[in-house]
Amino acid sequence: MHGAGNDYVYVNCFEESLPEDLPSLARQVSDRHTGIGGDGLILICPTDEADVQMRMFNADGSESEMCGNGIRCVAKYAYDHGIAPREEMKILTGNGILTVQLTVENQKATQVRVNMGKPILEASKIPTKLEGAPPLRQPLDVVGKTLEVTCVSMGNPHCVTFVDEITDEWVHGVGPQVEVHPAFPNRVNAEFIQIVSPREMIMRVWERGSGETQACGTGACASAVAAVLNGLTERTVLCHLPGGDLALEWAESGEVYMTGPATEVFSGEWPLEN
Amino acid sequence: MHGAGNDYVYVNCFEESLPEDLPSLARQVSDRHTGIGGDGLILICPTDEADVQMRMFNADGSESEMCGNGIRCVAKYAYDHGIAPREEMKILTGNGILTVQLTVENQKATQVRVNMGKPILEASKIPTKLEGAPPLRQPLDVVGKTLEVTCVSMGNPHCVTFVDEITDEWVHGVGPQVEVHPAFPNRVNAEFIQIVSPREMIMRVWERGSGETQACGTGACASAVAAVLNGLTERTVLCHLPGGDLALEWAESGEVYMTGPATEVFSGEWPLEN
Repeated sequence: MHGAGNDYVYVNCFEESLPEDLPSLARQVSDRHTGIGGDGLILICPTDEADVQMRMFNADGSESEMCGNGIRCVAKYAYDHGIAPREEMKILTGNGILTVQLTVENQKATQVRVNMGKPILEASKIPTKLEGAPPLRQPLDVVGKTLEVTCVSMGNPHCVTFVDEITDEWVHGVGPQVEVHPAFPNRVNAEFIQIVSPREMIMRVWERGSGETQACGTGACASAVAAVLNGLTERTVLCHLPGGDLALEWAESGEVYMTGPATEVFSGEWPLEN
Repeated sequence: MHGAGNDYVYVNCFEESLPEDLPSLARQVSDRHTGIGGDGLILICPTDEADVQMRMFNADGSESEMCGNGIRCVAKYAYDHGIAPREEMKILTGNGILTVQLTVENQKATQVRVNMGKPILEASKIPTKLEGAPPLRQPLDVVGKTLEVTCVSMGNPHCVTFVDEITDEWVHGVGPQVEVHPAFPNRVNAEFIQIVSPREMIMRVWERGSGETQACGTGACASAVAAVLNGLTERTVLCHLPGGDLALEWAESGEVYMTGPATEVFSGEWPLEN
């Protein structure tokens, strides 16, 4: 399945049992040449605490708490395959229990709305050494220029730069320099945003440890928050990413809601002796 | 399935029927984020002229005549799934009917030997503007240095450089310059070879139009021919590639035989309404 081009291999653990060494399985399955191929492995598991539990492993075998594009696919799978045939669903993640709302057409979930929580705007908690509370339009020196950046954490750190036109030079030339800049002790995801109108923007992202990806859910949320803080958009904005569109809302409650697509591409059998 | 890391999606057309627009299907299926993901799509089809027919489409939808790593997987599939349960098999390709020999263990094919045909050594037919018949150890100027290259066609053009140690700088720095050098009117695949012993070598390849790949069957054949012509190896040589090992033999008959692995990774269902 993929959510805006962010693709994982999903296993229905209501029916399948898995080997103990899940990091190794995730690495094998995710390899794009010798495995099934994907950004990682996500398990859809039974739990007493919610409708389903989501466990996610990256392609390198490390386990992550949550993925905004992944949770939409988990919700769609649970709905479409009758595990949790409800348009509002609770999903247990590494970040606690999240509630999602599904849009259903012809008995299939097509869009999923996820409460992504509140942004973290304190510099020391993002974390960044840049100043400001929140760190808005702060100067950041990279080779050949000084950027004006806004930093936001959505559980992971983001550094947002508003540009007149997004180019490969921004993403592949500047992005890697931002990622490892000493202003970010845990490194950072670098978003480049082109504002189209107060309700519409275009984003490309250089993800920490991954390079350019087709969509980063937390990055889109962080960018919407940054755009509101800078007075560039309204609190509801549509974000165009290379992998598809995400709709963001920074509610007055402080929470960020992300709505986006989820797509089941194919299903298959992976022999465990592989 | 993959052959030394060169992965395609294979369809058993003895059982499945496909839509008319195969280039479009190949592009959709091959997309590594929104499709199944692969280097392309290969169809295993009935034919009156051989045991099976192989049709191959690249990830961009273009059709190719033959692929040395792909034909091994076609042979393994036809053997393992009972389509042609024979250790010697004839396969109809865009380059005519090729005969392959299978190594079988526990009723499964593990290695496949393919007659890759005779190398083309005439400069004008490779094609290259470099001199020599064959073009051996010819000077080729790239930024900062002059290479000594040997050119061979195996139906597609190759430019082989023997180096003391293969580095990323050779493959990613020099490779792209060789690919588009004016000495090659149809562009060229650039192989970098480190000789280990007269029967063993290491290869990395910058493929025309694809960048670095894990294995290039015709490139390994061309490199073995180039190594023999330069007196660096015997006529039988084992080639270590990032995706696995290929055994090459330039027979006295003039034909090149390549033996290598074929692996079935997973099987699945792709809904045609995708």
